[in-house]
Amino acid sequence: MKFTTLNAIAGLAATLPTSDEASVAAARARQNSLTKPPGALGRLETLAEFMAGWRKTICPEIKRAQALVFAGNHGVCAQGVNPYPQEVTAQMVLNFESGGAAINQLCRVNGAALRVIPLELDRPTQDFTQGPAMSEAETLAAMQAGADAVDTLADVLILGEMGIGNSTVAAAMAAALFGGEVSVWVGAGTGSDSAGIARKIGAIDAGLALHSARSGMAVLASLGGREQAAICGAVLAARAAGIVVILDGFICTAAAAALYTTDQRLLDHCLVGHQSSEPGHRKLLAEIDKTAILELDMRLGEGSGATLALGILRSALACHNGMATFGEARVSEA
Amino acid sequence: MKFTTLNAIAGLAATLPTSDEASVAAARARQNSLTKPPGALGRLETLAEFMAGWRKTICPEIKRAQALVFAGNHGVCAQGVNPYPQEVTAQMVLNFESGGAAINQLCRVNGAALRVIPLELDRPTQDFTQGPAMSEAETLAAMQAGADAVDTLADVLILGEMGIGNSTVAAAMAAALFGGEVSVWVGAGTGSDSAGIARKIGAIDAGLALHSARSGMAVLASLGGREQAAICGAVLAARAAGIVVILDGFICTAAAAALYTTDQRLLDHCLVGHQSSEPGHRKLLAEIDKTAILELDMRLGEGSGATLALGILRSALACHNGMATFGEARVSEA
Repeated sequence: MKFTTLNAIAGLAATLPTSDEASVAAARARQNSLTKPPGALGRLETLAEFMAGWRKTICPEIKRAQALVFAGNHGVCAQGVNPYPQEVTAQMVLNFESGGAAINQLCRVNGAALRVIPLELDRPTQDFTQGPAMSEAETLAAMQAGADAVDTLADVLILGEMGIGNSTVAAAMAAALFGGEVSVWVGAGTGSDSAGIARKIGAIDAGLALHSARSGMAVLASLGGREQAAICGAVLAARAAGIVVILDGFICTAAAAALYTTDQRLLDHCLVGHQSSEPGHRKLLAEIDKTAILELDMRLGEGSGATLALGILRSALACHNGMATFGEARVSEA
Repeated sequence: MKFTTLNAIAGLAATLPTSDEASVAAARARQNSLTKPPGALGRLETLAEFMAGWRKTICPEIKRAQALVFAGNHGVCAQGVNPYPQEVTAQMVLNFESGGAAINQLCRVNGAALRVIPLELDRPTQDFTQGPAMSEAETLAAMQAGADAVDTLADVLILGEMGIGNSTVAAAMAAALFGGEVSVWVGAGTGSDSAGIARKIGAIDAGLALHSARSGMAVLASLGGREQAAICGAVLAARAAGIVVILDGFICTAAAAALYTTDQRLLDHCLVGHQSSEPGHRKLLAEIDKTAILELDMRLGEGSGATLALGILRSALACHNGMATFGEARVSEA
């Protein structure tokens, strides 16, 4: 998948694969034949049906799961929006590469191949209180990096991010895309105190005043960052390859929301792994009409919540594919 | 662990092991040194600390996890409380034994050794609308069967159940233990319609009128069943061996609640894996002051929700034990 202009993204929705309704119906019929009361496996049943539709088979499997973590740096850190120094982004990339971060452990336990993509960390985006965060060319380049990183042979793609300051970027994008009081989109992020939160709100107010365009791709370029653009690119490349995506928390969802407001069908193949304790995430999920699989009071990013949800998805498919039917097990029905 | 009388159960609380506060404190300090904002792993952090306390070590591991599913039959089925015929209990036991049920798949994916214990299925308890469900001797025998089934070398024990009619038994126990309108404790179970729910309520009303004793062990004997008693026995035997228990949904929690009202310390080593969509479960968890790890709209029993939560617990410990500290990874702190 090659991105040429931001304006062309909206046109993709009509050309990309859709869920196969016949496979969904066949998977649902199979669920209703399995040795349990109908519906008793709840979300596990609907997850299996979702996978069936996108993988176009009654009994989908996860043979290959990829986790991509994109890292970027943000000019808006000049506004004092984060208690950690910006070098932490590169330090955490090294930590990912040497296996010491949460996402490394979660990928090992839940069976995902992790790849970390640092995006020009020594060249932060422009401070969005002073000008657009990225040019169109910069935005497209980061989207392309995201798309090119997707393993097209995977069954499931987990998306995550790392970037000091990027909860401010995410809140700015969410406020621009969906409106409402800026303060409802802003939380503590990595650990801001009330003065830090006030600085985040101030920076976002300034950014919204400076950048009036509200289309998804304009918001991505003017207020987003490279890891947000890469997430959008990866979501689209996964869709082209028929891969189910598991989005992570607030920052990852805010990035993908730029695609949703462009054309809401662009997120049809996406699940959300975890409801973050970052307060804006609940509102964001309501806006994009998705319900997270897990809620564990986490607020880490890195793809951590999405990778935990991969474990639930594996369990869902194990039940779907491995359980006996009433007939096979000679169990009487109601 | 040997049970001699029901009256002796209350005295156990003062003699059983407790959580080691020094290990909890050491585990918490370790969490705060790991490369993430403090608290950012939410429930994963508190789960690791909980395990540290009960396993009495700063870095607990799950080398061995056991899942026990107890099955029983219930005389109250004579009141038409369940749409499935009572033979389904034995049929499902065969399905467990041949690997065709949901719990088999979930144990395989999440790494638990499953053992299924049918409890005199051809001798249902007495219909509690006519007399006490079990004598003291029958109750103690089922408790002993539960205790004796516990693998004392396990690190974690998952408890589940199967028994046609046992959502009525659970609702009866919950109503007797905690009071309130019977209707708030009663849901569809395996799939009752409104007439079936009315029959469940009628049977429970009759049972509550007939059996006035409200102590935990009296309620277990008069309104419970063998799988409920076995769950209580297994909870106690696990505690004696310092094993963390993951309770399953409504029926499993209602059984264990008989221990809670006997002495609430008896459930200190228990987690609850999943918030069931059976409506009484939320109220029951509030009564025993526990929050489920997962909520996935499931209502199956069999230990299914608890086994899914085992996967989360594995991830929690992988992060706790495997992540680098700020110092090790040379990541700057806030």
